[in-house]
Amino acid sequence: MLPIETSLAAVAAQVNDTLGRLLPEPSGAERRVLDAMRYATMGGGKRIRPFLVMSSARLFNVAEASALRVAAAIEMLHSYSLVHDDLPAMDDSDLRRGLPSAHKQFDEATAILAGDALQALAFEVLAHEATHGDPAVRVALVSELAKAAGAHGMVGGQMLDLLAETQTDLSIGAITRLQRLKTGALISYSCAAGAILGKAADSLRVALAAYAHDLGLAFQIVDDLLDVEGSAEELGKATNKDTAAGKATFVSILGRERARAQASLLAQQASAHLEPFGAAAGLLRQATRFVVERRA
Amino acid sequence: MLPIETSLAAVAAQVNDTLGRLLPEPSGAERRVLDAMRYATMGGGKRIRPFLVMSSARLFNVAEASALRVAAAIEMLHSYSLVHDDLPAMDDSDLRRGLPSAHKQFDEATAILAGDALQALAFEVLAHEATHGDPAVRVALVSELAKAAGAHGMVGGQMLDLLAETQTDLSIGAITRLQRLKTGALISYSCAAGAILGKAADSLRVALAAYAHDLGLAFQIVDDLLDVEGSAEELGKATNKDTAAGKATFVSILGRERARAQASLLAQQASAHLEPFGAAAGLLRQATRFVVERRA
Repeated sequence: MLPIETSLAAVAAQVNDTLGRLLPEPSGAERRVLDAMRYATMGGGKRIRPFLVMSSARLFNVAEASALRVAAAIEMLHSYSLVHDDLPAMDDSDLRRGLPSAHKQFDEATAILAGDALQALAFEVLAHEATHGDPAVRVALVSELAKAAGAHGMVGGQMLDLLAETQTDLSIGAITRLQRLKTGALISYSCAAGAILGKAADSLRVALAAYAHDLGLAFQIVDDLLDVEGSAEELGKATNKDTAAGKATFVSILGRERARAQASLLAQQASAHLEPFGAAAGLLRQATRFVVERRA
Repeated sequence: MLPIETSLAAVAAQVNDTLGRLLPEPSGAERRVLDAMRYATMGGGKRIRPFLVMSSARLFNVAEASALRVAAAIEMLHSYSLVHDDLPAMDDSDLRRGLPSAHKQFDEATAILAGDALQALAFEVLAHEATHGDPAVRVALVSELAKAAGAHGMVGGQMLDLLAETQTDLSIGAITRLQRLKTGALISYSCAAGAILGKAADSLRVALAAYAHDLGLAFQIVDDLLDVEGSAEELGKATNKDTAAGKATFVSILGRERARAQASLLAQQASAHLEPFGAAAGLLRQATRFVVERRA
């Protein structure tokens, strides 16, 4: 089996190509917002969510072109959330993926609008007949993404995260729920999308959902660790923000050692949920190790 | 035929009731964003877009419950756009529908998130099977709303509008395109939604689209007139903002008299496009007069 870095890079190249074709070509008087949409989406990133979509879709023999469109839609949605989260009124981050955040490169109004348009475009891509021949599949993709992205998903998680900035006494349970919404919902959707595209049996959907749940949490714990241990150069964004703000995180509550042990345990658990898929789930198993061992 | 104010009020009551059921009940730690979503959506407004959905749907004998869900989804989308447009980085408006705008009532971060979640919820509502039994209809509703709301629709129009603030020499053609995107796209969608729900023949869709096109433009010209002629009390928002900013509008270029004449002409044209529907289009014909004669 190839090293996961190779597989990740291959998916990233494919999804970047797909994004380049799906994002509107900047032209006309409104080109500023189209430029900002490209800037926010094409600036790199590990493309972990697309990797999860592609690897899950492969379990059910989904056509690659279908899965790539869904992967691109998720990346648009994810990019919009980063653009809005970076705004001065939210996390106030000037740096993203090693480059100025969208509102620094353009301006706040353009960044807000680019995020809004990226969200709309994600749904447009999913709903397009090129994504899947069966409208029932397309509408299921839309419905599940809307839930994952909304007030009881990603946006709700970001609300909790902002409120948490003034709370130093959050419990592990509260932080877990916050992260399950903020980053977990979209990670779970990325895996579920493969199953929806492949019209998978319920038992396999459940197994994949359990995998995604544990993987998402491990991912977030490692994010918290990297915020403490990593450097801004490696991460391409400011570090130690949470510690500086005195904010409760997995690491501030558990300590670094227990947090790392917890992440490893969750990654093993995630792998174990893949048992029904046998050897076919090799890429998803690799992903669990990568999530825990990554340095950025 | 009842006066249009009566029909509008009846639709407003129905759609408010539907919105109240579809918006998530505020609870849990993230209730702040749920409160803001309700605040932004339930604060009144004429509900002209829902009126257009309901009146168009009636032409094709669409079940009222279906049309009401679509009307509510459009109003969520419209409300999100008002919340984001009112932000300090955008139009910086403290007043909306006679009440503090969402970011004044809550805060900027909550307003951004509430807008984001309202957009997601609009798509969730459209994609839900309660909206229509045929997934092909639901996915068409999603697809067309995504286009109307995105970078080549409403968001693109708002980008043009922000750029126009520093341009006093816009042509009538440029202003027309700006408004066709900013407000026209969602008004057109409101009419198209009735035809999608009713699986209308192409010729009737085209007639309805032509009606919506002219109605949308008339609506915007009157908006510009009211900005000059109306009072803040009547309108529930600040007036004379465009004049104060030296911004090019239909009124600044055409003058009040020619602008009013143009709006009337467009309204008559809009009515004429309804000919294929005969007497059944009475409500849509009334709407053209209302749009031109309204005082707020």
